[in-house]
Amino acid sequence: MDKKPNEVLVSMKNVEDYALEVITLLNQGAQEVDIKGVGRDIGKAVDVFNMIKDKLGNGVELGSVSIGSESRDKKRLSFILLRVKKVY
Amino acid sequence: MDKKPNEVLVSMKNVEDYALEVITLLNQGAQEVDIKGVGRDIGKAVDVFNMIKDKLGNGVELGSVSIGSESRDKKRLSFILLRVKKVY
Ligand SMILES: [Zn+2]
Repeated sequence: MDKKPNEVLVSMKNVEDYALEVITLLNQGAQEVDIKGVGRDIGKAVDVFNMIKDKLGNGVELGSVSIGSESRDKKRLSFILLRVKKVY
Repeated sequence: MDKKPNEVLVSMKNVEDYALEVITLLNQGAQEVDIKGVGRDIGKAVDVFNMIKDKLGNGVELGSVSIGSESRDKKRLSFILLRVKKVY
């Protein structure tokens, strides 16, 4: 897994934990943050985006959505990458 | 759930079943087909797209990706809509 500076990888924690993690990054000056979900966590990544949108409204927008697949432990897993952008 | 003519709603069947359903629609003349996944089936919808891409290669492209949430049985569920477009 390739975790980048402004990337939040969604996994076992609550949706709200990840949403707050993204909001904190934005509050600390990040212009955009990627929310990544892999395999069965793809749906949770979308939940995280929806919660951020609920909390910040027009303060954020969905910049882009990428999907694809990557290998992990010899298994091929689908992923999603949701780019959240700050709006001024 | 609002199932449209060229929309394949991903649910309990295998990934391959849905991939074949989309490919059949494209072969029958559809220019684009939406793959929809709701809640825990969002990841499976991405799997379906990846399988179609594996099978058809440059014959298809990802036209757009929409995410959002909708209500079902008083619960709010995230969804994804992946638009697959035929390429000539
Ligand atoms: Zn619907």
